[in-house]
This record gives sequence, C-alpha cells and structure tokens, in this order.
Amino acid sequence: MEPPLTADYPTTERSRVRRMHPRGSHARADVHAVLDATPLCHVGYVIDGAPYVTPTLHWRHGDRVYWHGSAASRFLRAAEDMPVCLTCSIMDGYVLARSAFNHSINYRSAMVFGTARVVEDAAAKTEALRYFTDSFFPGRWDSLRPMTPQELKATSVLWMEIEEATAKVRNGPPGDPEEAELPVWAGVLPVRTSLAAAEVAPGVPDGIALPEPLAALIRSGRLR
Amino acid sequence: MEPPLTADYPTTERSRVRRMHPRGSHARADVHAVLDATPLCHVGYVIDGAPYVTPTLHWRHGDRVYWHGSAASRFLRAAEDMPVCLTCSIMDGYVLARSAFNHSINYRSAMVFGTARVVEDAAAKTEALRYFTDSFFPGRWDSLRPMTPQELKATSVLWMEIEEATAKVRNGPPGDPEEAELPVWAGVLPVRTSLAAAEVAPGVPDGIALPEPLAALIRSGRLR
Repeated sequence: MEPPLTADYPTTERSRVRRMHPRGSHARADVHAVLDATPLCHVGYVIDGAPYVTPTLHWRHGDRVYWHGSAASRFLRAAEDMPVCLTCSIMDGYVLARSAFNHSINYRSAMVFGTARVVEDAAAKTEALRYFTDSFFPGRWDSLRPMTPQELKATSVLWMEIEEATAKVRNGPPGDPEEAELPVWAGVLPVRTSLAAAEVAPGVPDGIALPEPLAALIRSGRLR
Repeated sequence: MEPPLTADYPTTERSRVRRMHPRGSHARADVHAVLDATPLCHVGYVIDGAPYVTPTLHWRHGDRVYWHGSAASRFLRAAEDMPVCLTCSIMDGYVLARSAFNHSINYRSAMVFGTARVVEDAAAKTEALRYFTDSFFPGRWDSLRPMTPQELKATSVLWMEIEEATAKVRNGPPGDPEEAELPVWAGVLPVRTSLAAAEVAPGVPDGIALPEPLAALIRSGRLR
C-alpha cells in the first residue's frame, strides 16, 4: 500500500532542505505536483567522476520516475545501478525588488534522488511506453501504427524509485515590503508557458481531425 | 582576442555529439544562442561521488558562464575547482508522429563543461552582479537601492570558462513522412513561453511607472 500523499520522503544529508525552509517540502504530494506539472526534467549522473546533465522527458507512476532514450546512448547503456539526481523546475516569474539582493524568481522545483534501473522485460517496457504516451496524450497509443520489435529494441526505458526528494516553491511579490517607500518599481513579471495552436504535418489525409484529447490539452493552458 | 563565433569549442569524449548528428553543433554561436535564450539553467556537480542538479539563473559574458547564490549554499561553498556540467534547455513543442517511436519534441539545448571558479574580489563580484542584473533588465542596477557590504558578502558568484560545449536543436514536423498515408493525426503542438502583464508589488508609490525596458521585455515575447 502506498504511503499517504502527506507523508514525507525520507531525508538525509543529500536532500535535506538547508536554506529557504519556508519554501521547501519533502511531502510526496508536493514532490509529485512538480514532477507532474512539467514534461521536461534534467537527469544528473556521474561518469568517471565527472557530472553530466541531460534534458529529457520523464513520467511518474506512483513513487517511480521513468525516462527513456535511445538504446545506443552512452548513459542509458551505463545507467544500471547508477545514482541519479533528477530535477524538474518551472519558472513562474521574475521577482523585481527594490534592491538587487532581494530580486528573485517565482518557481516550482523538485529534486529527486534514486538509483537508475533499466526495464529489461519486453512486455514491461512496452507497457511503460504505452503509459508514457497516454499520460501525455490520452488515448494516443491505440491510435498509432503499432510499435515494431526493432523499435522496442532500439528504445531504453529507465526508472528509479524515489529514495529522497525535495520540492521547493516560491511565489508572490518581492520580499522587501519594508522598502516599499523607495521610488523603485517593484513587482512580478509572470512567465506563461502554454501550448499554441496545433500545426498539422504535411501529408496527413483529409478528414483526420486533431484528436479531442490534444485539443483539450491545448485549451487547458498546461503542458500536460 | 576571441575566436570567431563560427569556431567550434574543443571536443573530447565527454562532449562529442554521438547520436542525432544533424541536430548537434559545437559552434560557439550555436552554444551561445541557447545559453542566451533562457534565464534558467541546471548545474550538475558531484559531491562524494553522487550527482546533484540545481536549477539556477545563469548569465554569459564571452566564453564564461556565471551563476550565483547564497554564500551559505553547500555547493557554492565547495565549488572551487569542481568540474561542472551546466545545461540549458528550451522546449519548443511536442512532435506527434504516426508511430510512438517517431514522437519527439522540438527543443534547443546546450550542455557546457568547465571548472567552477569563485569570484573572490569584492569589486569584481559587484561588477558581475551589475552585469547580471542589467543583462536581464537593462538599466535596472542604477535604479535600485545600492547593495550593502553585508548583501555582497552573503552572495557567492561562480563562473566557468566554457571548456567544451554541445548545442542541439530539433525543430520541424515529425520525421516520418513515409507514413503520412496512415489515418493518424500528426503534427506539432508548439510550446509558447513569454512574459505576461507585470504585477506591481504592494506599496509601490504612486507615479512610479513600469520602467520602459521591462515593458519592452514583456512586449518582445522573449524571457530575456
């Protein structure tokens, strides 16, 4: 049985929120909210002692985070059992204060730590890719030309159990109201990220309309 | 003298583009274009053999990339001489193909490698913070309440020379025109990121208007 969403992820030295405590949380629901709000994460790993940060799409299933890529990728080939830090962040606005020091940004971020695992079983890999596709675009998997065995083989799917995690959120106006009397404009420039009108690919046959789940996603103002 | 912008950054095993060759470049201009297009980067580093990925704002000055943070941060305190991978990525759209395998995203990314350095000299640190502020918001530094010695001390500024770098870009429709006859909707859902109308902070005195450079930034449709 899953722990309640209000439960915290375990915390050690590596994930404990040190600064900006009011902004930090280890609660599962808070971590999940950030992971689920953005399609793009940055996966950090270590090869021969050196850091690498790779942007990639991710998806979550319970307390597991998944990502995928080419089976030819040097990282994905070496990934099994590797410690990973996967970070998602969303910039929500510039925060302009009366002093440079109090400038900030509004953001939501999650940093999750775990150990990379490779999905080896073909059926489990297929199921993971279906879940990925349909979690982004509901119902899409069954509408597509089926995956071939070669395509499945050329794709690596990785996952990790969330061992530790931290979410941080900042929003609201600048934190220097005591300096409000200064003759300086202060406030927030909000960042808006959304999907624009769909651009149909060349050659799509007449009568094939934009599927309603995609239209709904565009209307939602969210990316997923 | 700086090398020409068409010159490539040096390449070793760590940065050589292995897959998706048509999407990859090591040219200085291509790397700079991505670094300069987004305010947010993800800095990857290694502590005790484990990877960490921290989102932060960055700025570029020639072939140096800078970032900053609290002088109390565990990473910023340990950063001197540390190998760093700093990655910027911008998602420009979902690319929906006729098969799951050919789904992709349109994106711009840059992965830069270097060695972290701390700006120790107070005057140089002040100058870096001024450059940072004004490169995001032209003219803002001089309009602000001046930085105090305590604020300067509480801020760490880091930089690295770009030793190696890779830029990758994908755009355009799905790459499966040979399957266009299939009865599947295919195309691109573009992602649009821009600034919305400014929200003035409580207490800003009457008659203090939004500075024109901020209004221009909002109108530009860019984040910087």
